[in-house]
Amino acid sequence: MAKSVFYHAGCPVCVSAEQDIITLIGEENVEVVNIGEVRSRIAEAETAGVTSVPALVTPNGNVLHINFGASMADVKG
Amino acid sequence: MAKSVFYHAGCPVCVSAEQDIITLIGEENVEVVNIGEVRSRIAEAETAGVTSVPALVTPNGNVLHINFGASMADVKG
Repeated sequence: MAKSVFYHAGCPVCVSAEQDIITLIGEENVEVVNIGEVRSRIAEAETAGVTSVPALVTPNGNVLHINFGASMADVKG
Repeated sequence: MAKSVFYHAGCPVCVSAEQDIITLIGEENVEVVNIGEVRSRIAEAETAGVTSVPALVTPNGNVLHINFGASMADVKG
């Protein structure tokens, strides 16, 4: 299975969701990207359709916004 | 692994998220409950902390609200 990508920004909601997602789908199946730190990947996340974090982009390109930590506008600051 | 429970209400957002979740974590690891139809389980979902659907309650009791289909108030009508 291709990897999903979990975008987050280090917020408490993000960290909690990250742990749940890793437990559910397996650490080997998900790439975790902190776009609060790796800001060069913000554009990639937006192109994928991410409008808030945390969000999981599935291998088939669907975006699952999980709970609500911060909007992309907040992340970009 | 104990099963997660995916609560939904049959809305298009719910159905799309359901397919993604089943693909990601495996059909055998998730119980799908349509609380729009099985209304006797609405109270159970609310007790678990579900405030909108679709939502996934993990085996450890965390609630992941995925995207947004409908509020519990909408489901209860």
